[in-house]
Amino acid sequence: MIYLDNAASTPVHEKVIEKMLPFFKEQYGNPSSIHSQGRFANTAIQNARKQIASLINADSKEILVTSGGTESNNTAIYGVTSKSKGRHIITSSIEHDAILEPCKRLENAGYRISFLPVDKCGMINPDDLRKEISDDTCLITIMYANNEVGTIQPIKEIVKIARERNIIFHTDAVQAVGKIPIDVRELGIDLLSISSHKIHGPKGVGALYIKNGTKISPLILGGGQENGLRSGTENVASIVGFGTACMLAKDHLSENTVYLKQLTAKLTSRILQEIPLTTFNGHPDMRTPNNTHFTFLGVNGEDLIIKLDENKISASTGSACSVKIQKASHVLKAMGFSHEQVTGSLRLTIGITNTEQEIDNTVDTLKKVVKELRAVSPYKNKYNF
Amino acid sequence: MIYLDNAASTPVHEKVIEKMLPFFKEQYGNPSSIHSQGRFANTAIQNARKQIASLINADSKEILVTSGGTESNNTAIYGVTSKSKGRHIITSSIEHDAILEPCKRLENAGYRISFLPVDKCGMINPDDLRKEISDDTCLITIMYANNEVGTIQPIKEIVKIARERNIIFHTDAVQAVGKIPIDVRELGIDLLSISSHKIHGPKGVGALYIKNGTKISPLILGGGQENGLRSGTENVASIVGFGTACMLAKDHLSENTVYLKQLTAKLTSRILQEIPLTTFNGHPDMRTPNNTHFTFLGVNGEDLIIKLDENKISASTGSACSVKIQKASHVLKAMGFSHEQVTGSLRLTIGITNTEQEIDNTVDTLKKVVKELRAVSPYKNKYNF
Repeated sequence: MIYLDNAASTPVHEKVIEKMLPFFKEQYGNPSSIHSQGRFANTAIQNARKQIASLINADSKEILVTSGGTESNNTAIYGVTSKSKGRHIITSSIEHDAILEPCKRLENAGYRISFLPVDKCGMINPDDLRKEISDDTCLITIMYANNEVGTIQPIKEIVKIARERNIIFHTDAVQAVGKIPIDVRELGIDLLSISSHKIHGPKGVGALYIKNGTKISPLILGGGQENGLRSGTENVASIVGFGTACMLAKDHLSENTVYLKQLTAKLTSRILQEIPLTTFNGHPDMRTPNNTHFTFLGVNGEDLIIKLDENKISASTGSACSVKIQKASHVLKAMGFSHEQVTGSLRLTIGITNTEQEIDNTVDTLKKVVKELRAVSPYKNKYNF
Repeated sequence: MIYLDNAASTPVHEKVIEKMLPFFKEQYGNPSSIHSQGRFANTAIQNARKQIASLINADSKEILVTSGGTESNNTAIYGVTSKSKGRHIITSSIEHDAILEPCKRLENAGYRISFLPVDKCGMINPDDLRKEISDDTCLITIMYANNEVGTIQPIKEIVKIARERNIIFHTDAVQAVGKIPIDVRELGIDLLSISSHKIHGPKGVGALYIKNGTKISPLILGGGQENGLRSGTENVASIVGFGTACMLAKDHLSENTVYLKQLTAKLTSRILQEIPLTTFNGHPDMRTPNNTHFTFLGVNGEDLIIKLDENKISASTGSACSVKIQKASHVLKAMGFSHEQVTGSLRLTIGITNTEQEIDNTVDTLKKVVKELRAVSPYKNKYNF
């Protein structure tokens, strides 16, 4: 099996599993218990918190551990708005549903939501943001890197604009953390969402960076864990695993980036050279090193995925979270893609476990299946396949 | 180490770990992905959902997987109230904070909350419930078994009353599921919260049983997982582990109950016979088979825990979730305990991994440390220790 869906989820690193295991078998104490087993679990969490913080140059006190990126995003949006008087939120039109859906719920509750447009590379224009800000704006939430096409937003400029107007800035950085260097302190970000399973940690755990002093209320109430901001017995083994994944991501960031860029470059150049009527989507330079996204004209992306799957290659059309409901990508539509371009698209996201041989095999297979699908395409005559 | 804090958390069963491991290493697909790795993960979740459902005789479609008991409770309370016109909730005065805190937040938002009293055994009186019901009541939430003293509430009678008035009934059954037989269909319960790590599954996962047709809105929005009721990439390995833990709990329920009762009986009778001025708390019969709770007059419970910990025995005064903030147990206060009785209390909760030898060693140690602590107690003269 060649797994090229690393933006959807990643294999858990061997060292991560190794660190997690003792917390199932032996160190199963509840971190809130005052006996030694409880204290041991609590120390392990605090240590992991430092590792998570370190990856983005935060203080460990600024790390709120959650059940994943989606909960982090929900906490940021509801947590900030419930503490603010303002009733206007600015976001982008290419956010993940974990941002869009909470925003839509608030829209139904009377909030005004501005969805910033993007250009054909999936990039927002900071000037558009500046124009949308009003005295009523309480939150700006713009993703760091897009999950479908990998485009990295001009976060530095965006934060500067938010700072000028003293508006809280949140970024869904699930696809960026661990892939590119992020320094929350230098950038001046207020809130930032992270997911563990996108960086070779376990699923079911994530974090929300909350800059010291940011006013936010909890989403889940109870025993008062996580400094009262997220109740529920801490998921010790997974938190420890997440911490380890963050440490590994930090320690190997440069070499991983070089490796991922090398593989994506090879994949991209071979596909564009060897498969006609194909475009490479997203921004040419401002993109995550592991993302590639193509449109094969005249081909249905889902048929392509099924064919690739039959050939033991795992790929996706876009966000894993929305494929089941078969809705056309709102990201590609916002980028101005035609229906045909949207349906003909394929996302191949590389991971550190992929090899050059796998990339070559993928291109060889892709050439074959695109040809097969084009032979029976309703667009056959249009393009003279 | 003798671990007698199984109400706080339990060791993960060897077979549970075994079932989880492949989902870290090999089957790491996102269950929403349409390729075979995604479908494999999705099938595993659906299988686990059946195992969870089976433990309480529900249909697998009625199982909402969450990040744990606290999230399940929050989802039940916010999810039901946001769909109801009524603005009155009835609960008990001995609920876990994961019920009390969301109720208090709603109280601040204008809801009326009735906290039913309990008798000295920690039991509510169904007549009190009947009297509190008004036309405005939209939810009754009463815990199945108490986390501190183990008292099992008269759930059958309570549900009957809720049914008569057509009010949604939720129960926090975190301490009851897997310990006593529960049949949601027979009882007619609408909503029921379960935690995995209380029944030898991993932490960070739980479920909310939602009877088919019950109106409820989601707490966390996004990609639309869990039928739109709980977004976020599914925590596949943990869900599979939770399912296995439910299966094991169901398959071994009778033998585990016999075993746990045997150990708690031995522990209780030896303590009451050999340590003077000691009371056994909670209901004498209507209690979970693994819970014992004592008051040692003239002793500070926290000192006792520290002494026991020095002797390699893990115990607690009550809920792990609230010990850190050192507040006096609201459960014991509601049961009419004096300050002295509250502070002198100790919870020893047995697990299936404990042995008879461990129970004997615990009593021997407890005798010694209670004597030591009483020798320096401020109540020394009062009781003539």
